[in-house]
Amino acid sequence: MGNRWGTGRIEAFSDGVFAIAITLLVLDVAVPASALGAPWYAIAHQWPSYLAYVTSFVTIGGLWMVHHGIFRGLQYANGTIMRLNLLLLMAVSFLPFPTGLMAEAIRDTSAERAAVVFYGATLLSISILLRILWGAIVSRPDLLNPEVSVQEIKASRRASTPNIGFYAAVIVLALLFPQAAVFGYLAIAIAAVWRARGEESPRPQPAPHP
Amino acid sequence: MGNRWGTGRIEAFSDGVFAIAITLLVLDVAVPASALGAPWYAIAHQWPSYLAYVTSFVTIGGLWMVHHGIFRGLQYANGTIMRLNLLLLMAVSFLPFPTGLMAEAIRDTSAERAAVVFYGATLLSISILLRILWGAIVSRPDLLNPEVSVQEIKASRRASTPNIGFYAAVIVLALLFPQAAVFGYLAIAIAAVWRARGEESPRPQPAPHP
Amino acid sequence: MGNRWGTGRIEAFSDGVFAIAITLLVLDVAVPASALGAPWYAIAHQWPSYLAYVTSFVTIGGLWMVHHGIFRGLQYANGTIMRLNLLLLMAVSFLPFPTGLMAEAIRDTSAERAAVVFYGATLLSISILLRILWGAIVSRPDLLNPEVSVQEIKASRRASTPNIGFYAAVIVLALLFPQAAVFGYLAIAIAAVWRARGEESPRPQPAPHP
Amino acid sequence: MGNRWGTGRIEAFSDGVFAIAITLLVLDVAVPASALGAPWYAIAHQWPSYLAYVTSFVTIGGLWMVHHGIFRGLQYANGTIMRLNLLLLMAVSFLPFPTGLMAEAIRDTSAERAAVVFYGATLLSISILLRILWGAIVSRPDLLNPEVSVQEIKASRRASTPNIGFYAAVIVLALLFPQAAVFGYLAIAIAAVWRARGEESPRPQPAPHP
Repeated sequence: MGNRWGTGRIEAFSDGVFAIAITLLVLDVAVPASALGAPWYAIAHQWPSYLAYVTSFVTIGGLWMVHHGIFRGLQYANGTIMRLNLLLLMAVSFLPFPTGLMAEAIRDTSAERAAVVFYGATLLSISILLRILWGAIVSRPDLLNPEVSVQEIKASRRASTPNIGFYAAVIVLALLFPQAAVFGYLAIAIAAVWRARGEESPRPQPAPHP
Repeated sequence: MGNRWGTGRIEAFSDGVFAIAITLLVLDVAVPASALGAPWYAIAHQWPSYLAYVTSFVTIGGLWMVHHGIFRGLQYANGTIMRLNLLLLMAVSFLPFPTGLMAEAIRDTSAERAAVVFYGATLLSISILLRILWGAIVSRPDLLNPEVSVQEIKASRRASTPNIGFYAAVIVLALLFPQAAVFGYLAIAIAAVWRARGEESPRPQPAPHP
Repeated sequence: MGNRWGTGRIEAFSDGVFAIAITLLVLDVAVPASALGAPWYAIAHQWPSYLAYVTSFVTIGGLWMVHHGIFRGLQYANGTIMRLNLLLLMAVSFLPFPTGLMAEAIRDTSAERAAVVFYGATLLSISILLRILWGAIVSRPDLLNPEVSVQEIKASRRASTPNIGFYAAVIVLALLFPQAAVFGYLAIAIAAVWRARGEESPRPQPAPHP
Repeated sequence: MGNRWGTGRIEAFSDGVFAIAITLLVLDVAVPASALGAPWYAIAHQWPSYLAYVTSFVTIGGLWMVHHGIFRGLQYANGTIMRLNLLLLMAVSFLPFPTGLMAEAIRDTSAERAAVVFYGATLLSISILLRILWGAIVSRPDLLNPEVSVQEIKASRRASTPNIGFYAAVIVLALLFPQAAVFGYLAIAIAAVWRARGEESPRPQPAPHP
């Protein structure tokens, strides 16, 4: 009845992909050499790039924290979890493309709506994949790390679920007010980092008796 | 008779190379700024880039899963395995180049055939290198991890062998129908991810007697 | 009372981000093809790129050594430390952008001042974030690794604190003499690498009695 | 007497830098879109890029194998070793620049000599740094891993020393015959991979008595 994978190398590979995707984001931030005549203006003028950089950085950082929580709870992965994880990494690795597109388009009235919606659609897909991955894990308690309770896993899943609705709402907002929607994506990302939970720490133990 | 290498750092280095190669693929996906006048069209028009991205991502992901299986079975590597692994990593790291070329050429009737065949030739070379690496491992049972049976190793090797024939067949197809061949490469990659096997999990144990 | 994170995967992820940011720096070093008519001149003419490369490389290397020291002392991270670490990594990952800008602007009298000040402001922000991260750690002795003394942690913090003042001073210098300021940043980075401390090694033990 | 660093995170960081530098090499391989009219010719015409890619890949691969051997022998690093290792990583991370320059210049009679000599000078610097790092290790037997004999360390050092002379000789050759010199660099790299040694494996043990 099956087949399983130790989680050590999955975590190492996933950490690598998260770390690289998050670090490649900076490659889309640049000041054109032709703009250096007015350097402070040129640097300030890149604000859409900085906003896109920060939004995607915090988003990937939050995803990594949630991913950390997921795999901490697992002792083994099965084939389904491996494949869902690969799909999730594929969507995360793709994120530098819509990030760069959004930074490029953000001051172009005709293009910014499309770029901001496309960016949001990528984030929505990532959220849905993450939700499916959680579902695959909760349905297989035999793969869980015995030190982690099903309650902890379910609490973590609950904490990550609302994002799907939030992303859908911000995408609708993007159709009307694209620039405001970028701040919406940033707010969701900050909230995700804020809510990400590690393991329960034990209650402070009384000092050992001498 | 000689000389051996612990597999920990080989896995760490190989995981790094796989993770970076898979994440660099996105750098070839871009919408030219001049196309942003019709943004939805411009985004959709990049479908060859997305197809090439997904195909190479799933291919490298499947290779990583097979590689994980190979090195899980090894306790030590010898010099031959080290060198074959380095050759394999060299071919995998090279993949972003034919991927980008294929994405660029896919709508250019004169160039797409060459690009799709060249991409397939790279994948065929990777498959052959992987087969040679498996052979080098099966011939040295003294290097195997004692917890892994030779049967498991041979089953894994059998599972990865047919790819050589499949790639050869799709390259022939590419001479006639280049665009169809890209989906052929994708199908082989999905099948490889599907068939990749971790370790045998033990049969569910009866609950321990109290 | 809460929530904690094992430091293993935080270190792995942080090491990945440091290693990638440090290695991406080279992408900003290039000789334009049009300059190859006088190749030695063209290679030498890139000295601002080399200087910027070395300065940022040594800076990130020193940050990594200090980060190594911080997390060696921690047994667990709490949510605050996780978030501060993510902010720190965001600033470090951003560094290739001001580095490339400084290399590009360094011979352009109108732009170099702005570029060198902007670069310094990024380094100053990193120093301040590092100082806040240290503070968050020292205030939670319950998270420390029991093998590490609070004295060691405080000594490490003291060693990293003066950088804030040094960076502020060099930024003022940059307003007057931008090129000299670049060497000031390099000097601070070399000093940080020089002062970075690992763990105290035990005194040489007397040879065990036979 | 001081200060020491565990080697685990140094290896992880160094592995990351080696893996990223080796994988970034492919970014310098590209076929210009304007050349796709004659795709097979355009692909073949890139041979200098492939040659430079393979030479640098095998060079970094061999360096990684030697580095693996160095740090396997160490139990702790001191500050000197940390700093020398950082210098070595700085030179290795720099290699994609002369690699790309050499690929670009290799068919340009006026530029190729300079580019090939500059590439060789980078490799020579790496060799010298590696030799100094070995020296710093051999002079501190108290930092060695007790499972590794000084004989093993010295044998590894001897194996890596001749490269300095070989690189100097090939740089002289490059002044006369630049294209031949590239194959000289490749030959040195292949020899380094061939000679790289792991740990001594114990003599085959007799089968255990039943």
